[in-house]
Amino acid sequence: MRTMLLAASAALALAMPAFAQEASKSAYPAPSEIVAAAPRADWVAIAAEDLLVMTLAPDAGGKPRQVVIQLMPAPFSQGWVHNIRLFARAKWYDGISVNRVQDNYVTQWGDPNYDNPEATGQVKPLPEGLKVMREAEYVLGDKAREDYCGYHVCPPNAQVAPGKFRSYEPYATGVLFKGWPVGLRGNQAWPTHCYGMVGVGRNYSPDTGSGAELYTVIGHAPRHLDRNIALVGRVIEGMEHLSSLPRGSGALGFYTAEEAAKRTPILSVRVASDLPKGEQPQFEYLSTESETFATYAEAIANRRDPFFIAPAGGADICNIRVPVRRVAEAG
Amino acid sequence: MRTMLLAASAALALAMPAFAQEASKSAYPAPSEIVAAAPRADWVAIAAEDLLVMTLAPDAGGKPRQVVIQLMPAPFSQGWVHNIRLFARAKWYDGISVNRVQDNYVTQWGDPNYDNPEATGQVKPLPEGLKVMREAEYVLGDKAREDYCGYHVCPPNAQVAPGKFRSYEPYATGVLFKGWPVGLRGNQAWPTHCYGMVGVGRNYSPDTGSGAELYTVIGHAPRHLDRNIALVGRVIEGMEHLSSLPRGSGALGFYTAEEAAKRTPILSVRVASDLPKGEQPQFEYLSTESETFATYAEAIANRRDPFFIAPAGGADICNIRVPVRRVAEAG
Repeated sequence: MRTMLLAASAALALAMPAFAQEASKSAYPAPSEIVAAAPRADWVAIAAEDLLVMTLAPDAGGKPRQVVIQLMPAPFSQGWVHNIRLFARAKWYDGISVNRVQDNYVTQWGDPNYDNPEATGQVKPLPEGLKVMREAEYVLGDKAREDYCGYHVCPPNAQVAPGKFRSYEPYATGVLFKGWPVGLRGNQAWPTHCYGMVGVGRNYSPDTGSGAELYTVIGHAPRHLDRNIALVGRVIEGMEHLSSLPRGSGALGFYTAEEAAKRTPILSVRVASDLPKGEQPQFEYLSTESETFATYAEAIANRRDPFFIAPAGGADICNIRVPVRRVAEAG
Repeated sequence: MRTMLLAASAALALAMPAFAQEASKSAYPAPSEIVAAAPRADWVAIAAEDLLVMTLAPDAGGKPRQVVIQLMPAPFSQGWVHNIRLFARAKWYDGISVNRVQDNYVTQWGDPNYDNPEATGQVKPLPEGLKVMREAEYVLGDKAREDYCGYHVCPPNAQVAPGKFRSYEPYATGVLFKGWPVGLRGNQAWPTHCYGMVGVGRNYSPDTGSGAELYTVIGHAPRHLDRNIALVGRVIEGMEHLSSLPRGSGALGFYTAEEAAKRTPILSVRVASDLPKGEQPQFEYLSTESETFATYAEAIANRRDPFFIAPAGGADICNIRVPVRRVAEAG
């Protein structure tokens, strides 16, 4: 474990030349090396309209904490994403907090007075214009399926195009499509609850949530939530600011009234396209339709770089993380 | 998400009677309710010899931090477990620290001067009597397989006994056996890298690690490590003290020299059976061979308790966590 993924690290390679040399001699590059060698054309820019910049209060040492979330483009969860942009533009998220951190499950943020029997403050009124979504929209609709079919799968036989990575899992067939992990079964397709994915908190059925309460996965993929809650995006930077927070000791990991000081304040959430040009963060992802991605996925499913002695012979889609990187600011 | 698993929580049920009533009317109990109703006979005591008590330095607020690790009994990873008891009894672990926290991967502890080019101190000499293990022992040997076969699977056909939970995964067939998650393929069987599992850090092959460097999984199950590193146990209490530590900013999540203050000191690690009787923690797990466990696993694979609208139709074994609970001290 000490030297895992060593070849991927230029910094450590300098410090430990013996290991680095050994790694570089390998005929089997590590997944990170495959990504690093990807041609420029394999990277897809993420629209500024699809990026949320969430600024948390600085940490105990005064260090700033920023989280960047990539929202799903069509055909994934579009109605909820509309709501999230609306909340952000109404500055509704400003001043809310992280209220729940349940180990190996989720970190959740929202109005600390909502549904909280110990709350002392008023519940924040929701903005106008929110869409009310239907449960049927947890899975992709007909139009989305048609779009999807052109890439990978044609219902009802759910054939996956040759050369594209697919994974047969207890939950469904897993594929990576337009930059996102997707489950397939019969003629249904849906985004999946992998580490770092962001979803919409809701109450009992038929409630589908507005987007006022959001959570991100901080443990093993809770795939039983697939098709039961709306996913809207994923954390692409600053995940550690949400995953390393102290766990709540109340039921479901909520902070109790005595722990109110542990609630991390959220100072602001902005759609990146609303920021001044020079302040807009820029990100790109490795096209899941590229040959590089297919090679990368295969290398993850069968690690043969120097540390490994027994290739796994497969991988679940939550272990094939879509590479996302920050682009130097245009300035 | 706000009300997930609500029925499982007596505390929250009191605070929110409307939801609790709704939940209690369900014909489908939640997995946690099935566990709570398990007959006494379905619980198996964990031997004090199989428990490690690891005491970390108190947190920034002066609160004590204790982690309890359950070591694997035979037939799992026995040689490494021998070494770990030997390290603990030599008090070798006392004074080491957590040196690496990599988000969605592992927290690792050991000698901060080992393999560290920026170290200023001396490497701690290892105790006498350590076993040197072979790579072949990452998978269970013939004797273990025979033992295993009596419960679930008879090579070479790898048939799983009816009524026992199994899961077909990209990595292998997954089963739960004698309290542990196990992967099966052909006539091979091996413990799997689920959240909270504890493994033995190693260097490049053919090194198999001594047990001086240990790690635990703090993210999505890195199943590509199965059969590549030795697993020796799992964290059964205090996991949050390892999973919520600040991530290291060095390569692979190691704390850099500038971050040396972030290394959490490990004050002591003791085998529970070596503690005075009144101080020995007592734990038990729900027998994976019990009918209750089969019902629990099925309920996880097909959630039908009130929050859920679409049962998953399956589960991977890392989502079917073996229930472990603390027994009131005999005193």
